[in-house]
Amino acid sequence: MAIETNGGALNGSVSHNKVAPAPLDASKLKITLTDFPKSLQRPEELRFGQTYSDHMLIVSFDPVTGWSTPEIKPYGPLSLEPSSSCFQYCTNVFEGMKAYVGPDGKPRLFRPELNMRRLERSAGRFVLPPFDGDELLKMIKRFVQIDSRWIPNREGHSLYLRPTIIGTRTALGVMASESAMLYVIATPSGPYFPQGLRPISLLGVKDTVRAWPGGTGGHKVGGNYAPGLLPQKIAAENGYEQVLWLFGDDNRVTEAGVMNFFVIVKRENDDGLDVITPPLNGTILPGITRDSCLALASSPSFQESNSFRLHTHELEFTMADLAEWSAQGRLLEALSVGTAAIIASVDRIGFEGKDITLPSYKAGMGPVGWALREKIVAIQEGREEWEGWSVVCD
Amino acid sequence: MAIETNGGALNGSVSHNKVAPAPLDASKLKITLTDFPKSLQRPEELRFGQTYSDHMLIVSFDPVTGWSTPEIKPYGPLSLEPSSSCFQYCTNVFEGMKAYVGPDGKPRLFRPELNMRRLERSAGRFVLPPFDGDELLKMIKRFVQIDSRWIPNREGHSLYLRPTIIGTRTALGVMASESAMLYVIATPSGPYFPQGLRPISLLGVKDTVRAWPGGTGGHKVGGNYAPGLLPQKIAAENGYEQVLWLFGDDNRVTEAGVMNFFVIVKRENDDGLDVITPPLNGTILPGITRDSCLALASSPSFQESNSFRLHTHELEFTMADLAEWSAQGRLLEALSVGTAAIIASVDRIGFEGKDITLPSYKAGMGPVGWALREKIVAIQEGREEWEGWSVVCD
Repeated sequence: MAIETNGGALNGSVSHNKVAPAPLDASKLKITLTDFPKSLQRPEELRFGQTYSDHMLIVSFDPVTGWSTPEIKPYGPLSLEPSSSCFQYCTNVFEGMKAYVGPDGKPRLFRPELNMRRLERSAGRFVLPPFDGDELLKMIKRFVQIDSRWIPNREGHSLYLRPTIIGTRTALGVMASESAMLYVIATPSGPYFPQGLRPISLLGVKDTVRAWPGGTGGHKVGGNYAPGLLPQKIAAENGYEQVLWLFGDDNRVTEAGVMNFFVIVKRENDDGLDVITPPLNGTILPGITRDSCLALASSPSFQESNSFRLHTHELEFTMADLAEWSAQGRLLEALSVGTAAIIASVDRIGFEGKDITLPSYKAGMGPVGWALREKIVAIQEGREEWEGWSVVCD
Repeated sequence: MAIETNGGALNGSVSHNKVAPAPLDASKLKITLTDFPKSLQRPEELRFGQTYSDHMLIVSFDPVTGWSTPEIKPYGPLSLEPSSSCFQYCTNVFEGMKAYVGPDGKPRLFRPELNMRRLERSAGRFVLPPFDGDELLKMIKRFVQIDSRWIPNREGHSLYLRPTIIGTRTALGVMASESAMLYVIATPSGPYFPQGLRPISLLGVKDTVRAWPGGTGGHKVGGNYAPGLLPQKIAAENGYEQVLWLFGDDNRVTEAGVMNFFVIVKRENDDGLDVITPPLNGTILPGITRDSCLALASSPSFQESNSFRLHTHELEFTMADLAEWSAQGRLLEALSVGTAAIIASVDRIGFEGKDITLPSYKAGMGPVGWALREKIVAIQEGREEWEGWSVVCD
């Protein structure tokens, strides 16, 4: 008889069960296919995150019985009590991942185990029910197989996946949500820049702060995003496309919009280029594209094949540094990186009424950004192998 | 013909309508009563926020047509797309209010116009659709009338109301939610301390930070709450009931759990008592109970009738100040104040392995906290009139 004395320790809540709540278990997955498959959009009509595939993956957690039977079923609305924790206290975390079709016709994911580890950490930060991300990944692979006709087989296109966990506790006292729902939806996506790569502009913002020491900026939680919408609107009204989030009296650069941020700075002694991004000090999201850019830029083979001499750094830098590097003609590229856009280049950074202007490039992106982007897309689409980053769904 | 050229300026999104979106309009309120009224719980069984009344007030916003016909209808679940902004980016704001039965048998609200102004500000902070809170208040009054049998007619009991606005945009790109749902649910609530008033303990926390300058701590947004659940769990595991949120290298005291915080400090020259709470600097929620405590404590008539000489201050103070005042025997009371508990007294504050212990009182609360609490409850329940604070629903 399975007696688990610490079964009630989950979420700090007192539970009366003596049997351990069931763990998340991919082997229990139940599949109910839709009777009404939707018609696909033409790839050229696809925008980011506007239409959804035929199915969704869904499973819920009850503090007594644990994780329910996971299910892949037709995509549809959720029914939730209006008092649910997800609406009231925003006990919500998520991930962004992309599925591609490889040259072998098989669907692939890009470094998905990193998404699973980050989702486990995000859930823990919000005292949501624990789960084994490897079990979730098995089910996501099955989901991608089932909805693989939704992966546009065209360069720069993918099926974007959004794993989400929401708290479903219905009592209004502010407490950890001992019940939850985990679901994954999928949206076929065209390229972030449908008209071809073009640089974007950023407005440095210091009055509103995205993240702070002791906050949640280093986790992928829903509540990190709503506070940025007003500054984003103000930036747009001032003619800039995204916000460059600054922090502290010395205006340290942190993130750009909802993406990590890199600069490429020419060394004074002609000893190559510094590739610099802010360190993971708790205010920076540990982005998977960020990690991939650092890994590639540090790799001798990547440098050799592009005739680069790159020196990567996770280092703090300020708006004053950017202005100085720019004045010296050393600020060659600025890049916003993330799952949705992969890499976007920046050609203008406004701050306190002045603009820092970056060099413009024919391709819409400088050579380092371009090479990183080409390499990452080739790995994602399974055209090149790199350290097992592209994982076949089988 | 009503042509409104700035109709598309809402939320910074481009809209194709030429007619202004309809404003929130209480005169359109549609009422559908339940055919299945639930049975009431006995007042002594009521806890905070666990059961809901027969009905809910609900209205939604579409960027083209504006606010829909508001409706009071049977309480029930919401149906939402899994991609909705409320789950993904937490574009969610709320209010807490209480309805009471007065001696005249009429339902009453406590300073409800302050909740409406704060909800308008919270919605604006998250670029949610604008609305006139006075229209919402008219409908809340009607809702309270309809569900007035749910207000427990017993001292210390009330019908707790939870106005909530959630973003319902279904595209995954991170943008303001140009569509939304506004609803109000009601939960009959017993006293926060069902066994009679008793002091609570707080653990000073500095590693996790509730709010930051440039953040959203001064607004009532859902995302302020989830990050506090883990520190709350850790505090409980260490034997403290709530967190005392500290800020900065000097350990400034900010809020206690999800409540504002006051201390009562005896003056050195025997010139009465200082009543001190942190100032509204953007990291402190502008609480309505906080404001009411400040107003009452500053009032000569309140002071006279209680033989107090009080000096109110909105001033920063630190853990070192608390320790010094305590060592000098001058720290007479510490109070957590908010809508749910009204006023709770604190008897112990832990920080860095040491406890500050406050005087204990027979009544479970010191004289200033007690007098403020008695007065606020008397005003809320309509037994005493004070500057129009108690508003009859008619």
